Amino acid sequence: MLSPVQIIKAKRHHKELSEKDIQNFINGFLNGDVTDYQMSAFLMAVHFNGMTDNETFYLTEAFINSGKTIDLSNFNKFKVDKHSIGGVGDKTSLIIAPLIATFNLIVPMIAGRGLGHTGGTLDKLESIQGYSARISVNEFIQNLEKSNVSLIGQTDEIVPADRKIYAIRDVTGTVDCIPLFVSSIVSKKIAEDADGLVYDVKIGKGSNLPDDDEAVKLAKKLVEVTKKFGKKSIAVLTDMNEPLGNKIGNWNEVEECIAVMKGEKVDDLVKVTSVLCGAMLFMSGVANSIEEGEKISSEKIANENTYKKFEEMIANQYGDIEYLKNYDKKLRSKISYDIVAEEDGIIAELNAYNIGYASIELGAGRKKSSDKIDFLSGIDLHKKCGAEIKRGEVICSLYAETQERIDKALFQMQGSIKISKSKPQERILIKDIIY
Amino acid sequence: MLSPVQIIKAKRHHKELSEKDIQNFINGFLNGDVTDYQMSAFLMAVHFNGMTDNETFYLTEAFINSGKTIDLSNFNKFKVDKHSIGGVGDKTSLIIAPLIATFNLIVPMIAGRGLGHTGGTLDKLESIQGYSARISVNEFIQNLEKSNVSLIGQTDEIVPADRKIYAIRDVTGTVDCIPLFVSSIVSKKIAEDADGLVYDVKIGKGSNLPDDDEAVKLAKKLVEVTKKFGKKSIAVLTDMNEPLGNKIGNWNEVEECIAVMKGEKVDDLVKVTSVLCGAMLFMSGVANSIEEGEKISSEKIANENTYKKFEEMIANQYGDIEYLKNYDKKLRSKISYDIVAEEDGIIAELNAYNIGYASIELGAGRKKSSDKIDFLSGIDLHKKCGAEIKRGEVICSLYAETQERIDKALFQMQGSIKISKSKPQERILIKDIIY
Repeated sequence: MLSPVQIIKAKRHHKELSEKDIQNFINGFLNGDVTDYQMSAFLMAVHFNGMTDNETFYLTEAFINSGKTIDLSNFNKFKVDKHSIGGVGDKTSLIIAPLIATFNLIVPMIAGRGLGHTGGTLDKLESIQGYSARISVNEFIQNLEKSNVSLIGQTDEIVPADRKIYAIRDVTGTVDCIPLFVSSIVSKKIAEDADGLVYDVKIGKGSNLPDDDEAVKLAKKLVEVTKKFGKKSIAVLTDMNEPLGNKIGNWNEVEECIAVMKGEKVDDLVKVTSVLCGAMLFMSGVANSIEEGEKISSEKIANENTYKKFEEMIANQYGDIEYLKNYDKKLRSKISYDIVAEEDGIIAELNAYNIGYASIELGAGRKKSSDKIDFLSGIDLHKKCGAEIKRGEVICSLYAETQERIDKALFQMQGSIKISKSKPQERILIKDIIY
Repeated sequence: MLSPVQIIKAKRHHKELSEKDIQNFINGFLNGDVTDYQMSAFLMAVHFNGMTDNETFYLTEAFINSGKTIDLSNFNKFKVDKHSIGGVGDKTSLIIAPLIATFNLIVPMIAGRGLGHTGGTLDKLESIQGYSARISVNEFIQNLEKSNVSLIGQTDEIVPADRKIYAIRDVTGTVDCIPLFVSSIVSKKIAEDADGLVYDVKIGKGSNLPDDDEAVKLAKKLVEVTKKFGKKSIAVLTDMNEPLGNKIGNWNEVEECIAVMKGEKVDDLVKVTSVLCGAMLFMSGVANSIEEGEKISSEKIANENTYKKFEEMIANQYGDIEYLKNYDKKLRSKISYDIVAEEDGIIAELNAYNIGYASIELGAGRKKSSDKIDFLSGIDLHKKCGAEIKRGEVICSLYAETQERIDKALFQMQGSIKISKSKPQERILIKDIIY
């Protein structure tokens, strides 16, 4: 049996670790035999030397084995989930979850919080008064039985190794590393006991993996490792050069989703949502192809049943349904600032990375985990890339509780909006589908 | 100012760190702002991406600044020291220190303890009853004033950053990394305030850097960085494929040094010692070349003045001079075992690495820092490489307090002695001199 330092050295010297080595190292970390600094040295060595497919699978397995898993074997319906690696204005889960549930499929979603410049589904839902993602696993299962759908945050019991290791990765510069990404994501998805998993891998300036080749590689590895666990899996590479939809924040994103379910056209949001749902319906056997699934889904996004399921899903988790009626009242933080065009032209760039960080400055996300979110802060985009604009017209509006926050966000936004005289290349929303 | 995680990421992405970045990171580590696991991630990133010459210099500087330094500016004699990266049977310091002191030069030696398979000067000296390396810096300076020479262990006050970081390197697989080696060694040498430093860089199977190219690179970097601090510096690359001299242990090595100072011929030990002394005399201005220095030294090794200075040096640090008279009594641990030749031939290999580890098993070194050394244990080599041997003749004798230790050492020795029919290549003791 290799000692912790021998395991680190083996990784350093490109030797493949066995299932037992990896399991021992992760168990050792949880029981204190492997120190924090040995783990961080190991993670940095993984960053440099990567992991083989087998190693990545074993690490994922060790993560899963580190805690409890959810048992949904009593459900005789297909269980399907979607996971996004994180984007700016990325609110598709709020529509996908209820929509897929209306097809009599089970959607057991362990959702996340904002991370870096990207938002989190749970934060968005918590902008609805009363809503709680902190429900027990039992309550989660009851919701699934009753309504086919429930969203829950990661609990202390599920994949504890990942949470403990993520805390180290975050402060040791080892976040953007494919095998570590894969193990972290897939372990949580396997632990929730879905039969099929669709991954939304963002590609472009606002992706958590800004290098396009790396994003493609991540998509492939996510699908590969998930299939190794006997699950169906599809990855969709979607554009994240500019934010998705027209709202970035929390409540304003919920608002946008409700508007879309009530018939408003937000082209990019509808397209990405439909394709992701299409992949879910295809793997569930509801559609014969992703394209067919996309078509079925796109027809059901602006649909009363979908919205009703959304309300039911919110109500199941103590959300105030009356509050949802505010969706067209533009509830916002008290200070606003409009960014206007300084020249005539066509919007050529809305840098999702900078806009994401600007929304954090406004209060829509956390800089450190103890920060409180201001749910009514954020950014409304009035124009997207490719739109014509006249000098003096408003491009976007920023909302925050203090002028200081607006100023910091504006500083962060510098250079992130570009206007050109010629029409920019058309945006390709769906870059690739891997399965 | 870069945060700890930004400094780690910069190193990960091959960006050169500034003097301020490195100083802040090391200071932060000492005051708790940089965690152990951030340090270990940084060290692993340094292992993979290396350090530029400037970064290595700044890291060394930061190490020095982390604690107190010894001030020898009141001495108006040239101050010169020798440092070995560690070898098996490497006992030259015990002769060099008194010999150089007889030239009216100051030898302020911060010596080390055994590490891995290699022995330590302080452990060897402590095999002399009463001897203490745990003297205060004041006492150290008084000894230098009185006798020109003193040996001291690293104190808590000198280069504390190195000691704290070494403890992490040891258990995170980041020991064998050139810039970290260089900073660790040079910082301690600069802190002792010598004017000139000779490095004995071991090359071959028993070196702490078993890759020959790496050993050469280390030698060059040691000299470069030391010169950057305004000191004279020479590195001598010496053979460590087989142990140096005929004794490996602690008391038996002291014994061998005394015997040599009293006239016994131990060719390899005398040669390496003379060349290192030659380099020291050359940089001190006593000799006009290393060769001349070597010649002068070789004539003074077996010399009454040198031995008297040795006794003085031991007596200054509470060593029992009467005990030294045992040098020809072969005081050894109670169990002995002779390894005999199984065939006629010529000794072709005595693997220093395995023999070093075998001597640790016998009790001559520590497997963990709390282990107690058995000073009378060790190995006596009766034949060296190139010597003819007959079947049944004793090649070497092992000494330990228990049969169990002997058995473990024999297991460690397996395959480390080779006898061939033809004469092996002649051993080149001095591979290169870099300055």
